[in-house]
Amino acid sequence: MNPIRVTVWNEYMHERTEPHIAAVYPDGIHGCIAAFLREAGYEVKTATQPEPEHGLTQEVLDNTDVLIWWGHMAHGDVDDAIVKRVYDRVMAGMGIIVLHSGHASKIMEKLMGTNSGELKWRENGDKEILWSVAPNHPIMRGVPEKVIIDHEEMYGEFFNVPDPDELVFVSWFEGGFVFRSGMCYKRGLGKLFYFRPGHESFPTYFQKEVQQIIINAVAWAAPQGILKIASGHTPDDAT
Amino acid sequence: MNPIRVTVWNEYMHERTEPHIAAVYPDGIHGCIAAFLREAGYEVKTATQPEPEHGLTQEVLDNTDVLIWWGHMAHGDVDDAIVKRVYDRVMAGMGIIVLHSGHASKIMEKLMGTNSGELKWRENGDKEILWSVAPNHPIMRGVPEKVIIDHEEMYGEFFNVPDPDELVFVSWFEGGFVFRSGMCYKRGLGKLFYFRPGHESFPTYFQKEVQQIIINAVAWAAPQGILKIASGHTPDDAT
Amino acid sequence: MNPIRVTVWNEYMHERTEPHIAAVYPDGIHGCIAAFLREAGYEVKTATQPEPEHGLTQEVLDNTDVLIWWGHMAHGDVDDAIVKRVYDRVMAGMGIIVLHSGHASKIMEKLMGTNSGELKWRENGDKEILWSVAPNHPIMRGVPEKVIIDHEEMYGEFFNVPDPDELVFVSWFEGGFVFRSGMCYKRGLGKLFYFRPGHESFPTYFQKEVQQIIINAVAWAAPQGILKIASGHTPDDAT
Amino acid sequence: MNPIRVTVWNEYMHERTEPHIAAVYPDGIHGCIAAFLREAGYEVKTATQPEPEHGLTQEVLDNTDVLIWWGHMAHGDVDDAIVKRVYDRVMAGMGIIVLHSGHASKIMEKLMGTNSGELKWRENGDKEILWSVAPNHPIMRGVPEKVIIDHEEMYGEFFNVPDPDELVFVSWFEGGFVFRSGMCYKRGLGKLFYFRPGHESFPTYFQKEVQQIIINAVAWAAPQGILKIASGHTPDDAT
Repeated sequence: MNPIRVTVWNEYMHERTEPHIAAVYPDGIHGCIAAFLREAGYEVKTATQPEPEHGLTQEVLDNTDVLIWWGHMAHGDVDDAIVKRVYDRVMAGMGIIVLHSGHASKIMEKLMGTNSGELKWRENGDKEILWSVAPNHPIMRGVPEKVIIDHEEMYGEFFNVPDPDELVFVSWFEGGFVFRSGMCYKRGLGKLFYFRPGHESFPTYFQKEVQQIIINAVAWAAPQGILKIASGHTPDDAT
Repeated sequence: MNPIRVTVWNEYMHERTEPHIAAVYPDGIHGCIAAFLREAGYEVKTATQPEPEHGLTQEVLDNTDVLIWWGHMAHGDVDDAIVKRVYDRVMAGMGIIVLHSGHASKIMEKLMGTNSGELKWRENGDKEILWSVAPNHPIMRGVPEKVIIDHEEMYGEFFNVPDPDELVFVSWFEGGFVFRSGMCYKRGLGKLFYFRPGHESFPTYFQKEVQQIIINAVAWAAPQGILKIASGHTPDDAT
Repeated sequence: MNPIRVTVWNEYMHERTEPHIAAVYPDGIHGCIAAFLREAGYEVKTATQPEPEHGLTQEVLDNTDVLIWWGHMAHGDVDDAIVKRVYDRVMAGMGIIVLHSGHASKIMEKLMGTNSGELKWRENGDKEILWSVAPNHPIMRGVPEKVIIDHEEMYGEFFNVPDPDELVFVSWFEGGFVFRSGMCYKRGLGKLFYFRPGHESFPTYFQKEVQQIIINAVAWAAPQGILKIASGHTPDDAT
Repeated sequence: MNPIRVTVWNEYMHERTEPHIAAVYPDGIHGCIAAFLREAGYEVKTATQPEPEHGLTQEVLDNTDVLIWWGHMAHGDVDDAIVKRVYDRVMAGMGIIVLHSGHASKIMEKLMGTNSGELKWRENGDKEILWSVAPNHPIMRGVPEKVIIDHEEMYGEFFNVPDPDELVFVSWFEGGFVFRSGMCYKRGLGKLFYFRPGHESFPTYFQKEVQQIIINAVAWAAPQGILKIASGHTPDDAT
């Protein structure tokens, strides 16, 4: 079997403009994620928002099995035509993993069918504990039932997304909030995993358990079954 | 309790331009549906695509608990701003019942997050049998487990929609096709019921069981719980 | 429409043998629950484990639309034949609301198909916060999105139950635990709502928001659709 | 990675007592299934009801990743202790694939929490068409969207099982019936796939597409994540 082809997409704004963020992610968030995915055996490329076509040409997407999406401060500047291109690839079977503040991106809202930007949040460095409510899910391979992240941005319910097909993680935050932090969706022939942690100011993507979850999510999201379905006028009997 | 306020929206093209359709629905599809919903005790208005703002002004929508949507040949002519207005009301708790060829409407695709226009179809007047797979659902009140419609347009899987929160009906068609014909979704604070039958050339909406299903779906889709949720920056502890 | 007929079933052991529990629930937990359900307009009876047939004769069950179940220390003493009788009624359409430690009861395990007694727990009087993740659900009518219970027994994930058909509440506990605290299931023609709060040593069922949730859950769980389904040998065509 | 260990369990009554069934499955249904699973690379054993402990000793089960279950005429004779042993292994993470008339087995009813024996049926050799409603599911790898089985026993809805976590196939039958024929469930740490086709009098398990579905289902059902979860008294904070 050929290795799964992953494209790690990053808005790549914070790291270029804010030294204290660059200090956390010197190679960019995409660089950090690409590195551990490569080590896991995937064929990995990166793409960023400042590149032409945001680095997501038709050719890049056509050769991507799973796209990872991190964005935050510049959602509004993402070109609608590129969003549509990503959406079309998901319909055709590409997996997509939307991370953290990507919840408010155009592609997330388009795939959810809701205002998924809506949730409660604060940047206090709260402690977060991820609890698995689906321990034998493929995304849990080698992951403990409880993952503690010492400091993170807090996200709290109500998170305006459809009920997931599978809920994998629920987060506890000091301060009294909870959040559905790992959620699986099918959309068209593609799959989407939303994973909450990963604020730019915390080294969350350097944490081993978090890396393992994303590594597993890639395998889960990769195309697995039928990727061409007939539709439209069908005059003949099916028998 | 005040009566539920329903707006029945119809594209209203076939009935005005094709005499053999007008013969089936002399008062328009909206007229037929409005009549049996009124008789069921709801407060019912109608709106059609040719009206200014397609009859869906902000005021009309603000006073609608459940919107019924029938469209077919002119989906592309529905104003995007009106689609957004309907979407916003669903986010805020309005129920919506999408009928038959409304599967390919802009509002359906926007709420599904998929190319829900994709399915197999043929207009052969096939016999359709609706089987309930959720017999004690509120939409089944007074409805038999099997509803035969003598002649209908056929829709066949794969229907490109997300897995429903609840599957209520599966249709059998002569010719060898099946279809998920009654599906419940939550979107934002609103609810959506997709119901398959109702091609313009067949008198489906005059059939008592079909009417009962739509009557029940209105009660199911009407707002029932919290309709205002705080989101955004939340600096204080929740405790 | 006739009022919904509710039977509130209580193990009724703690209150009779432990004065500090009797001080919290002088009329028994069933007495407290029956009182607020009656005030809400339901037709309410009570039944307890020490009664002959645990108070759940065939006649009582045949005249029950929704059964409420509270048990804790004597699950093992509940007669298997009575458990089967309750199960049969759920299959036939009766609703059942399983409260708190009822998670480990024979009827819960039988309806779940899992060892639903498995979860983490401690009796430290932790603060609990219930967050709604389904704000427009009928169980949320008049209930705020956040319900604080000052002191409760803690239950923590992993809770060994199937994924619910609908998840309504997620609880936060001081100490770092989370729990899926309000879950909807269909079983046979009946419906089940599991609701976590209600340890015998805390006055949880006197709290207004908790009462409103249970009042709403009764309406949700009551039979609503088809209650007789043909099965078995079916020689004739369905057409 | 070690190969997945499969135990194919068969009641093995029809083939030993009815010559016309033995003619269809000369090596027993288990023999047929074991052969194609072995060819797919799994480590396969068989076990049958007439063997001591029905061939399902604790040691056999402890060394089984996925159990396949075919039973029909002797469900009532399966020892409750063995059923409990299988159930315990599913709770601990073993996958189980229940085939055809296994829907009415003790283990299926125990894992469903419903009277899953209830459905409509007839033995007329009806044509069956399986349609996929989850084309990119791992169970669909190499399987076409439509699988025609020329002659099968008919099963019709309402099938008394909980809503599946994922619905993969819907069957069409000549005569007007439909059936949810491929359904995924999580139970405890284990997974269950119910697959409808496979009446003893038809050579269904010799059909390539049917074999591919079962081959894929084994991979899907095999343990993948956490297989040991702490539960019980948990006095310490989780932080």
